[in-house]
Amino acid sequence: MSIKSYFWYQTKIMAKRVYLSVVMLVLFSANISAQNNDSIVFKKIANEVLIHGKCYNWLDYLSNRIGGRLSGSPQAALAVKYTRSLMDSIGADTAYLQECKVPHWVRGEKEVGKLITGKEGEIIVKICALGGSIATPAEGITGEVVEIDNFDDLKKLGRAGLEGKIVFYNRAFDETKINTFEAYGGAVDQRWSGPSLAAKYGAVGTIVRSMTNIIDDNPHTGVMKYNDSLPKVPCCAISTKGAELLSGLLKKESGVKFHFKMSCQTLPDETSYNVVGEIRGTEHPEEIITIGGHLDSWDLAQGSNDDGAGAVQSLEVLRTFKALGIKPKRTIRVVMFMNEENGGRGGAKYAELAKLRHEHLIAAIESDAGGGTPLGFGMVGKDDKKAKIRSWAKLFLPYGVYDFTGDEAGADIDKLDDQGATLMGLEPDSQRYFDVHHAATDTFDRIDKRELELGAASMTMMAYMLSQYGL
Amino acid sequence: MSIKSYFWYQTKIMAKRVYLSVVMLVLFSANISAQNNDSIVFKKIANEVLIHGKCYNWLDYLSNRIGGRLSGSPQAALAVKYTRSLMDSIGADTAYLQECKVPHWVRGEKEVGKLITGKEGEIIVKICALGGSIATPAEGITGEVVEIDNFDDLKKLGRAGLEGKIVFYNRAFDETKINTFEAYGGAVDQRWSGPSLAAKYGAVGTIVRSMTNIIDDNPHTGVMKYNDSLPKVPCCAISTKGAELLSGLLKKESGVKFHFKMSCQTLPDETSYNVVGEIRGTEHPEEIITIGGHLDSWDLAQGSNDDGAGAVQSLEVLRTFKALGIKPKRTIRVVMFMNEENGGRGGAKYAELAKLRHEHLIAAIESDAGGGTPLGFGMVGKDDKKAKIRSWAKLFLPYGVYDFTGDEAGADIDKLDDQGATLMGLEPDSQRYFDVHHAATDTFDRIDKRELELGAASMTMMAYMLSQYGL
Repeated sequence: MSIKSYFWYQTKIMAKRVYLSVVMLVLFSANISAQNNDSIVFKKIANEVLIHGKCYNWLDYLSNRIGGRLSGSPQAALAVKYTRSLMDSIGADTAYLQECKVPHWVRGEKEVGKLITGKEGEIIVKICALGGSIATPAEGITGEVVEIDNFDDLKKLGRAGLEGKIVFYNRAFDETKINTFEAYGGAVDQRWSGPSLAAKYGAVGTIVRSMTNIIDDNPHTGVMKYNDSLPKVPCCAISTKGAELLSGLLKKESGVKFHFKMSCQTLPDETSYNVVGEIRGTEHPEEIITIGGHLDSWDLAQGSNDDGAGAVQSLEVLRTFKALGIKPKRTIRVVMFMNEENGGRGGAKYAELAKLRHEHLIAAIESDAGGGTPLGFGMVGKDDKKAKIRSWAKLFLPYGVYDFTGDEAGADIDKLDDQGATLMGLEPDSQRYFDVHHAATDTFDRIDKRELELGAASMTMMAYMLSQYGL
Repeated sequence: MSIKSYFWYQTKIMAKRVYLSVVMLVLFSANISAQNNDSIVFKKIANEVLIHGKCYNWLDYLSNRIGGRLSGSPQAALAVKYTRSLMDSIGADTAYLQECKVPHWVRGEKEVGKLITGKEGEIIVKICALGGSIATPAEGITGEVVEIDNFDDLKKLGRAGLEGKIVFYNRAFDETKINTFEAYGGAVDQRWSGPSLAAKYGAVGTIVRSMTNIIDDNPHTGVMKYNDSLPKVPCCAISTKGAELLSGLLKKESGVKFHFKMSCQTLPDETSYNVVGEIRGTEHPEEIITIGGHLDSWDLAQGSNDDGAGAVQSLEVLRTFKALGIKPKRTIRVVMFMNEENGGRGGAKYAELAKLRHEHLIAAIESDAGGGTPLGFGMVGKDDKKAKIRSWAKLFLPYGVYDFTGDEAGADIDKLDDQGATLMGLEPDSQRYFDVHHAATDTFDRIDKRELELGAASMTMMAYMLSQYGL
């Protein structure tokens, strides 16, 4: 390169730099200004929810007046009716029900469980049927207990070691996982597929250690799935305290037996509904942002954390848009999904209808991780869209929402992935979530008003950004 | 500049760049390697606390066996004895008590409060004496109620409007503050200086709305301070539900009266103690890192969140160092301070002794914001030292500790600032903290084991970094 061309080259670089700087400055200023406006809207949203929020009262009603809302139950029907009427009182532009068939499993009489030992006699323990389990015969089932932590051990013991026995799955949560959902993920296979895997080798029933971090005397229910090509055996959860007791006894003596009686059954499918309410977008009404939680819950308690919280937070998003007079550019559609807990039929129906109608679902947010203090959003989708959402992160920081690294969204919306929607899951602090998850302790008094409201505010903020800027 | 010197100049710049790049690379590699080692230690600390942690059991004992530990009470003495013995069982290199004189205020009989109205008759309301209040005469005090939200209004009403009256401070928490401590800070002057300010204009007593975010029927106590140059009048807190009721009645009719009876009194000062335990530093034993919480609590409940949590977390720091065999380069000194709630005498004594002995206090960490999920550390100190601490932030992120922007440390260590120590406060999620703060609901069942343990682990990690790298 000649000196002359070198200088020419340098001048060009300089010019380019100046140009880029000016462009950057203009873009930066525009961006700053947009972000300032957005941060003002964020503050309005937070104030509205924290001062005038209704979600805590709605959850009180869902929890204390209606109670546990298992699919197909009268309570689930009441919850549909109640939240459908809320959609009107909030002033949704459109509100409707989406019919879906749901499984109808009933628990029956309170379950009976006892340990039969040589040295300590009979010990009553607290158990509950797993959702979907068949009943025991009326006189119950009694069998020698074999403790298993790992499915591989089933194969090793084989039919010789398991025929006629009751398999006790006792793999505990890994307490070293900081994310409690990871600990749940590392244990829940025992509940889901454990019964059939044990039946394969002739076991006559299964007990599973409750899916929780804490040691207490509350059994935690949850859905299980039979493998249709294998015999069906009754399966129950035992409290963690009971599990520790049983495991201790098994170390002390051989031949410890478990006896249990359950009268649960699966009735014919029932008709139920997703509850849907919309605010139509002003500029791109065809672009739809789905916001949801699930309306059904387990039957042992009030389902306040799982997932009454997510349902009422979603309603609060809609209420807040209306109360503040925010007219979204894109359509906000709030969906309270039915049957997340034991079938996912509501989520499936929603995805099916959206596909059938060729709807343009750009994003979906689910809140189904309890009513705790919101800390972030998990995301599933294309990298560029996730990057765009992350570019908004700074706006959320004053509200304690800092973590956009997670990759979980929600069971009800997961099926929308292949329709091009970017999926998001509200991530509340979940350290105490599994203390009450699916147990009799998931009650309204475990909910803190501000924590619930901050979650609703965060969802509203995210809905606002998505509706304003699209993806 | 000539072309030649220009090239010379460019070459020099290039050389400098290359040199800097190499230096950076070396430093970066060293840093990466150090950070890798540190992250391994962090993981060990987290695992140790989450699997083998003792702080939850210790807090159970402090809460359920000992109970509320107001300075000068038999329970406070028991707490000193109990935690002093824990220091030995943990294996502190040195453990000792630091004597200090503490105020000894006692609540006496359960307080009586009632509203006397024309339209609704007499209504019993839940109240509690504020810490430090004098008693009412045995027959109680009755007076017309004047509601005040702002101290300026006292002056406006003057003696003509306040003489013989009972001032009712009803300024609520500002719910729009995301940090609940800011909301507390915006209301607590009513409790602290309200009684004397009202007495200045002839008021005969004061009622203050409880310092909490929620509306319920639990009065929240807390310390108040008389101005010695003004008459002393009895002062109590009323539950937020009671406050809303009273405020509503005052809007409906004039002449609403309040009657209250309290037999609280201040006895002569008692002898009490800070409980101290140390692990001596291997390289710089003279450089001291103070880790603490306060052992005293209010008397209405078990003081599990305020501040049993901070006390046992501090002990857990020491236990974890010993259990993992970590030998700190600098001295770790755990202090359970006495009398934070109504005098701060333990903190003052600690600062006084450190000064007298010319101790080199490099840093201090206090946990006194409840046992919730840890989210960050507040800092008070020189910018370069805070910057050094912030350079470690990335290590804390996997444990959910992300916020190093706060500027609060802790009431017991604040006096160490002028001795050159950088002060830090553990910042747990505090959305639900004021629900129970100083009320009968601050009990052990409000504590989640994992949340408490994660706080202890975070403090241990910070103590490790400070002891390893100094400031």
